[in-house]
Amino acid sequence: MARAPGQPLSVVPVVVGPPQAGEVRVKIVHTALCHTDAYTLSGMDPEGLFPCVLGHEAAGIVESVGEGVTSVAPGDKVVPCYQARIVGGGGGGEGVEGGDARQRRPLPPVPTPTRPSLPPAAPTLQAWCGECGMCRSGKTNLCASVRQWTGAGKMKADSGTRFHEAKADGTADLDKPIYHFMGTSTFSEYTVVHEVSCAKLEPDADLLSACLLGCGVATGVGAVVNTPWGHRGDCCGESHKGPTAGCTAAVFGAGTVGLACVDALVKLAGASRVIVVDTDPRKEATARAWGATDFLNPKTDLKEGETVQARIVAMTGGDGTEGKGGVAGVGGVDYSFECVGNVEVMRSALECCHKGWGESVVVGVAPAGTELATRPFQLVTGRAWRGTAFGGFKSRVDVPKLVKDAAEGKFKCAEYVTHRRSLDSINEAFDLLHGHGTGTDAVKPCLRCVIDM
Amino acid sequence: MARAPGQPLSVVPVVVGPPQAGEVRVKIVHTALCHTDAYTLSGMDPEGLFPCVLGHEAAGIVESVGEGVTSVAPGDKVVPCYQARIVGGGGGGEGVEGGDARQRRPLPPVPTPTRPSLPPAAPTLQAWCGECGMCRSGKTNLCASVRQWTGAGKMKADSGTRFHEAKADGTADLDKPIYHFMGTSTFSEYTVVHEVSCAKLEPDADLLSACLLGCGVATGVGAVVNTPWGHRGDCCGESHKGPTAGCTAAVFGAGTVGLACVDALVKLAGASRVIVVDTDPRKEATARAWGATDFLNPKTDLKEGETVQARIVAMTGGDGTEGKGGVAGVGGVDYSFECVGNVEVMRSALECCHKGWGESVVVGVAPAGTELATRPFQLVTGRAWRGTAFGGFKSRVDVPKLVKDAAEGKFKCAEYVTHRRSLDSINEAFDLLHGHGTGTDAVKPCLRCVIDM
Repeated sequence: MARAPGQPLSVVPVVVGPPQAGEVRVKIVHTALCHTDAYTLSGMDPEGLFPCVLGHEAAGIVESVGEGVTSVAPGDKVVPCYQARIVGGGGGGEGVEGGDARQRRPLPPVPTPTRPSLPPAAPTLQAWCGECGMCRSGKTNLCASVRQWTGAGKMKADSGTRFHEAKADGTADLDKPIYHFMGTSTFSEYTVVHEVSCAKLEPDADLLSACLLGCGVATGVGAVVNTPWGHRGDCCGESHKGPTAGCTAAVFGAGTVGLACVDALVKLAGASRVIVVDTDPRKEATARAWGATDFLNPKTDLKEGETVQARIVAMTGGDGTEGKGGVAGVGGVDYSFECVGNVEVMRSALECCHKGWGESVVVGVAPAGTELATRPFQLVTGRAWRGTAFGGFKSRVDVPKLVKDAAEGKFKCAEYVTHRRSLDSINEAFDLLHGHGTGTDAVKPCLRCVIDM
Repeated sequence: MARAPGQPLSVVPVVVGPPQAGEVRVKIVHTALCHTDAYTLSGMDPEGLFPCVLGHEAAGIVESVGEGVTSVAPGDKVVPCYQARIVGGGGGGEGVEGGDARQRRPLPPVPTPTRPSLPPAAPTLQAWCGECGMCRSGKTNLCASVRQWTGAGKMKADSGTRFHEAKADGTADLDKPIYHFMGTSTFSEYTVVHEVSCAKLEPDADLLSACLLGCGVATGVGAVVNTPWGHRGDCCGESHKGPTAGCTAAVFGAGTVGLACVDALVKLAGASRVIVVDTDPRKEATARAWGATDFLNPKTDLKEGETVQARIVAMTGGDGTEGKGGVAGVGGVDYSFECVGNVEVMRSALECCHKGWGESVVVGVAPAGTELATRPFQLVTGRAWRGTAFGGFKSRVDVPKLVKDAAEGKFKCAEYVTHRRSLDSINEAFDLLHGHGTGTDAVKPCLRCVIDM
């Protein structure tokens, strides 16, 4: 339980209520830590609600199901899929980044859902629910079905929570509700999720790999294979997947998400050149093992006054050299991926793209209140700026396929598990994620620390 | 001649030298004024060189050709195509927006061109030159062949200028060179352009319409039909043109470029809804005549504290209404086009796009030194930000086709000519462009004022 922002997690007895209508109770087998958990725990996330049960990258087994649940049954292996924090109330304001919601608050009422009176969607259009306007569009993986509840740390059936602190006698203390997090709350031996958030796996699925496909690895792979054309093909029957054989790319940030981009660029797209940018020199060996052709450390590798983007442009033909992947005398990469969550890095990622056609994808989540910026010239000269949430994958539909693909070795997955801990040691796992390991762990960078329940 | 920034043009005798190798001397028949001319004349354009002959939207007849010119001959109708100010030295810095180059300067030497040793390009890949790396990529309309000279106000053959002030005896005063502008300099009875910048028209072409296809109308139409997928199809054989039947769009700015977007959205894409945003109430009638379904004046139509983007989102389903073109409860347009050149408007244009798939295209040219900005969330939630130069058209190849299409009524063209003047009255034409007309001209907004030579 995360009692309050900025404090270590408390490993305490929590009562996990039975699943209500449309809900599934899942016994978590593995859960990994991701920077988003750390971000919310830090208190910087204005949407963070405390106390809560964090965790959103996990795999487990269905323990019981609520009324009306048909797509999964007890015993099924599943990945709880988070509801991206992105489909809030209408408007450019987005709402969710304002205000300060860090204190424990009473659970306010949630409005009755408005369900558009549209004909049922074809199965191929299904994202999570397959019924909301966003799913029905076929053009996005952002499902609106339960977002208004998951964004408020609650469940849809009764706008309540299934987590309560335990009293001394082991029963739920109804005066001490605990918020859900991202609709998943996987830092718990048991959790309750909406049926639409539950991706059912094959019986032989490897849950350790599957756990990482609940967020980081899927996000990185999807950023490469789904995002650049922003067009998954479901709407028009054509799938325009961006990076193709021979393309060049730059990946900013060599954590799990960035490395998953590298892996997808090399193995799935056939990129000829992948430049990885990271300030941690320990990441170079990993990046090269993953297939990076170049590693650039902005702290040590730049000339005085040189920007990362200028260096990358020079490295890819801007210095007048032919055969570097860009037009000689112009330079730049075909695609770039920002996997750090820093608006200055986002700018570098855009500006290192090739004039005329370079596309940059924002993958990292930047702190609330920050803004990306560039001169309009950068766009007018033919670059494009995009973003992705969960790599564009329609989670309940795509995660089971990704688990199969990973098992077939189409891309790396279990390779990101550099550390494992028990639930009791979860705070140590956060230290590892922040690079504060000691002994051997100080040498070996932590990509993912998996908690084995 | 523009003697200095911020001063009216001087209508004076100028000696236009004969075309050198690879050059064409053109008798201008019509030239229109565009805001880019006004921008450079204002002195705000750091790349502006004085004294110069402005003008870049024109049509004329070849008077004579230099050595080696084969694609046009005397008597041919042509459109002088400007070299977009976009292919400078490599690097994110772009160079061209720095510094202050507003004073008369000696003509510095231009480096010898580096021509990549690549096989000749297929004709379909031809932009202007068809030979430079950019043209050969097939992925952009930005040709690099003569940019380094046109950007410096000069011609490639001798890195010199063909314009000189006339002495009292009518001969050229070699001590008083005048810079070229955008490789076109069409505010002159005669001008000299590079052969690669000369689009040859059919003998029956209407030069009045053709003149507007040298910049404004082509830019607006192309922003719609070429830009959103950033992909013209030349590279892979598939042409993914963005807006399709039933789409929704917002167009910011109802000048010629914006109206050409509206026209293309309505006639070529079959948009179901086109919202035009302009602060000039006189533009509403024009916008609606062009096919706009809604007109929004940010100065008078917003509620207190409401942003343009919030209003557009609400108008397209964000208010929970179905059938407005966006998902009910989410809202936003499928495409937006910024045709103003203001970074705050660019932000509005991005943020009024639909979550999950909305694409915004920067068409307007913003003042040097300004930057566009938004929260990364706007991209991560599925919006894309692009830009376009000359609407993505490969000018020498595409302009002749556009002239035909306009003649066949596929889109409006001569309709933008609201005013006509003689060369002697060119300063009055600038006043009209700035909206400072008097009498009838104060009531009727100026879209294009054409100078008849």
